Amino acid sequence: MPLTAPDAGIRESERAMKELGACGVQIVTNVNGKPLDRPEFEPFFARMAALGITVWVHPTRTAKTPDYASEDKSLYEIWWTFGWSYDTAAFMARMVFSKTLDKYPDLKLIVHHFGGIVPMLEGRIGPGWDQIGARTSDADYHSLLKSLKKRPLSYFKEDFYADTAVFTSDAATELGMKFYPLEKIVFASDCPFDPEKGTMYIRETIRIIDALDLTKEQRDQVYYKNLERITGKTFVNQGARATSAV
Amino acid sequence: MPLTAPDAGIRESERAMKELGACGVQIVTNVNGKPLDRPEFEPFFARMAALGITVWVHPTRTAKTPDYASEDKSLYEIWWTFGWSYDTAAFMARMVFSKTLDKYPDLKLIVHHFGGIVPMLEGRIGPGWDQIGARTSDADYHSLLKSLKKRPLSYFKEDFYADTAVFTSDAATELGMKFYPLEKIVFASDCPFDPEKGTMYIRETIRIIDALDLTKEQRDQVYYKNLERITGKTFVNQGARATSAV
Repeated sequence: MPLTAPDAGIRESERAMKELGACGVQIVTNVNGKPLDRPEFEPFFARMAALGITVWVHPTRTAKTPDYASEDKSLYEIWWTFGWSYDTAAFMARMVFSKTLDKYPDLKLIVHHFGGIVPMLEGRIGPGWDQIGARTSDADYHSLLKSLKKRPLSYFKEDFYADTAVFTSDAATELGMKFYPLEKIVFASDCPFDPEKGTMYIRETIRIIDALDLTKEQRDQVYYKNLERITGKTFVNQGARATSAV
Repeated sequence: MPLTAPDAGIRESERAMKELGACGVQIVTNVNGKPLDRPEFEPFFARMAALGITVWVHPTRTAKTPDYASEDKSLYEIWWTFGWSYDTAAFMARMVFSKTLDKYPDLKLIVHHFGGIVPMLEGRIGPGWDQIGARTSDADYHSLLKSLKKRPLSYFKEDFYADTAVFTSDAATELGMKFYPLEKIVFASDCPFDPEKGTMYIRETIRIIDALDLTKEQRDQVYYKNLERITGKTFVNQGARATSAV
């Protein structure tokens, strides 16, 4: 959903849901370089929350974002490998500290790739951001921290949904599954962007999730039941459910 | 070790080792915005490799690095929470793709915080960067990939040492321990930058490592034996070793 014209983005979201049968809408982590906690985007989030529309958040960045002040572009696709994950984490932080999540607790945001780098940085987000303000002299982050409804880390764990697309890393999947509550996790594989051009990430992501220490009911939550609950849609037909129950 | 004048940085490193009894030197992930794979820094790495000097790499970034193109600074200390970890990962990538590690295989680089976000992004660094070039049209990354001595992910896992400072995250510690070979991991706690101002990160990092499924010998590797092997120094005296063996 392009948000360059936020009012049009709202209208198109409503049309997609009501007339086209969409199960949610997708946005990207910035709009032409603008963070999504700007006032101009608030009506979009307000409307999505009011209508219960699920919003899937995909990172966006190109080589034009340099990694070093002395350079004018990012080399070696670092912008993709690390940058996309950074942008997902920054989006989540801005939703927390702008109090967008406090204001719209019913907002349903699904972050891609288990929230990128967020699960690995639990310690920085936790004890690190419990001390927000200690590294800043030109803004009153102490007061901001006190005015939040809960600890920063709690928002990251409890107020987002996250998908499982981590490019066949067993360890990252385990970490993501530990970081978010099970009812917040939805299946995704990043198909078709794998070396086989479509089959590998689906096959391997299923293999990894099947190998986790989960009951069948818990696995089914991740595979489709959580997404059905979040979106109110049915993704698995009764025949498939019967087979899946075997 | 300031590298704004790389030749002076080399001389001071040698002096610190020979005359002052240092066990290694510290550098930061960029020098006034310049990446460390620039030709001007190569003599430093060449000399550190030749002399076997251990180089500990600390991230550096301030609020002056914005997170969005429309802003002129980073808000909410995102530059610290996410930016430092990003910069560590970018440093590692530049050492790999510039072939600095191919050229100086004996270089001993210890990256802080388990390499920041690197362990969580194993899938992007692995299958993702196995396809480097697929997202780029203005550079020949296919040829670069072929010219590397091994798979990009292998450098990240095998060619760096990493320390354990992840701010009391059990899950991040487990992930870091899985990502790097045990002989590459050295203890660190980020003391004194915890909410208690010094005691918490040491106490909790020891608690977390003690709770891992490791033998006493393996734990001792992490606590001091790896660092003794890397640096050729002795950090634990015989009395303490006897106590530690109980």
